[in-house]
Amino acid sequence: MEKVNLQGVRLFAPASIANISCGFDVLGLCLENIGDYMEIRRSEKAGIRITSIKGQDLPLEAENNVAGVAGLAMLKAYNAKLGFDINIEKNIKPGSGIGSSAASAAGTVAGMNYLLGNPFTPEELIPFAMEGERLACGSAHADNVAPAILGGFTLVRDTNPLDVVKLPTPLELTATVIHPKIEVKTADARAVLKKRVSLETAIKQWANVGALVASLYEEDYALLSRSLVDEIVEPARSILIPKFTQLKKACAKAGALGSGISGSGPSVFALSRGMTDANKVAQAMYDVYSKTEIPFEIHVSPVKQTGVSFLEDLS
Amino acid sequence: MEKVNLQGVRLFAPASIANISCGFDVLGLCLENIGDYMEIRRSEKAGIRITSIKGQDLPLEAENNVAGVAGLAMLKAYNAKLGFDINIEKNIKPGSGIGSSAASAAGTVAGMNYLLGNPFTPEELIPFAMEGERLACGSAHADNVAPAILGGFTLVRDTNPLDVVKLPTPLELTATVIHPKIEVKTADARAVLKKRVSLETAIKQWANVGALVASLYEEDYALLSRSLVDEIVEPARSILIPKFTQLKKACAKAGALGSGISGSGPSVFALSRGMTDANKVAQAMYDVYSKTEIPFEIHVSPVKQTGVSFLEDLS
Repeated sequence: MEKVNLQGVRLFAPASIANISCGFDVLGLCLENIGDYMEIRRSEKAGIRITSIKGQDLPLEAENNVAGVAGLAMLKAYNAKLGFDINIEKNIKPGSGIGSSAASAAGTVAGMNYLLGNPFTPEELIPFAMEGERLACGSAHADNVAPAILGGFTLVRDTNPLDVVKLPTPLELTATVIHPKIEVKTADARAVLKKRVSLETAIKQWANVGALVASLYEEDYALLSRSLVDEIVEPARSILIPKFTQLKKACAKAGALGSGISGSGPSVFALSRGMTDANKVAQAMYDVYSKTEIPFEIHVSPVKQTGVSFLEDLS
Repeated sequence: MEKVNLQGVRLFAPASIANISCGFDVLGLCLENIGDYMEIRRSEKAGIRITSIKGQDLPLEAENNVAGVAGLAMLKAYNAKLGFDINIEKNIKPGSGIGSSAASAAGTVAGMNYLLGNPFTPEELIPFAMEGERLACGSAHADNVAPAILGGFTLVRDTNPLDVVKLPTPLELTATVIHPKIEVKTADARAVLKKRVSLETAIKQWANVGALVASLYEEDYALLSRSLVDEIVEPARSILIPKFTQLKKACAKAGALGSGISGSGPSVFALSRGMTDANKVAQAMYDVYSKTEIPFEIHVSPVKQTGVSFLEDLS
């Protein structure tokens, strides 16, 4: 049922970490403390309007904006005569590697769905949000929009047809993310990847993916730690991230379960058991990067169990 | 505590399926209805003696027999002054691809451990049994001995150091196995594999491994079915198995969740939900192979939830 009296909603659109070591192109997780705020309002005028974006300089035309494109894809599937206005308070920097475009796209479609009385299941919203990713990076991947919509850990088994598995998330799992303020172009991050990999290394990778999935179900932090390994993508891409090796060593020494490149970088994430360890890891990351000239930000956040959060109904 | 009065045990040493489509070199499962019978008895004389082998022509010298080698590895770790006599009734044909050597090695160490009052955990027995595999095929792999000892589905994350995860097994999961009586040499099965694979295909493989593991925890047979895919090893190895494509199509048509090469072949397995479907798959396999000149055997078996079964204490 459409909630006819509900005119708007204020929501939190979470950042996310894609890839997660061995889970390149497949795994993602949702973050609790990092994300954008958005207001989605019903409008008499058909279509999507981005009425304001605070915090970042991004296109306002719906067709050139990831939120706009995702919203339009949803309207096209549901009812093209409806209209929505969108305000975005952007806290996640585009290009940081923690799902900036995914947050905007996921927030838009989740918010519209909420106002329409949930005609779509969360899983059904993912393809609309993926259209935003297609605009942002040229390929309609689901690695970030799936966790941003479903929450927790997600596994994208296939994108055509879309086949996403929501995985359980151990409650104490906490992420530390450092965002070195350098630009890593997605094209460069793709270009450094080898098109072919050794079968032996690939086998190790899928053994680790299988073990990582099991560790989430078992809440086995030690197994999770042993599985957070990537011998394929990380060795190639880490050359684009200054001090990556030092960061990784420092995270391990500080007690992290594992660490790796967030998305296609430049952000680097670590996972820890509990906030205390995650804060120690943040300090260790700080100690490494404060010796460089590179500006950076560090975030500490539990893994968010649910996706987009609805904060307030707006009249 | 050593059970000093327990002189012997009769046991069932199960066959197993290794690889399981996307899980090449990593996944394995234990079979309920196919396996060897063994009698393990304490002896006054130190060491391991293979006192008889029925059903197959295999070496009796302990050092040249997989059961002997596995038993000796265990004695060396525990107490080299102890002695055991082993009778084997061999039902699993060596070279069939359903873990013949693993059954003998697993049965031996599990039986000895039972008679000694379980000084080792099941996981600790795996490395001893792996020594049998080293004798049988030149590499101490755990893909078959892990499920034969632990039961159900197992994932070998690493062999050095050994890191095995026991996975849950949906109760209705039933295997159908056809053993075409042709020889596929392990060396040939290895030789047809390409040393390098495309990153794109490898990503699909680890997406499927992750989804398959999730499907076992979720008891999601549909997801299991979608995950039982192998675009890397199966296309290369299936050329060694006559009528493989026809078998696979017939299994799918008969209602199997999926099918693939068992171990390094020549046996082909299918997994179904429930015995009725598994029997239909058996008929479909029969219809394909009865049109060839190749002798064959077909087995239908639930996945065995536990490993080696102890049938009777012997005085």
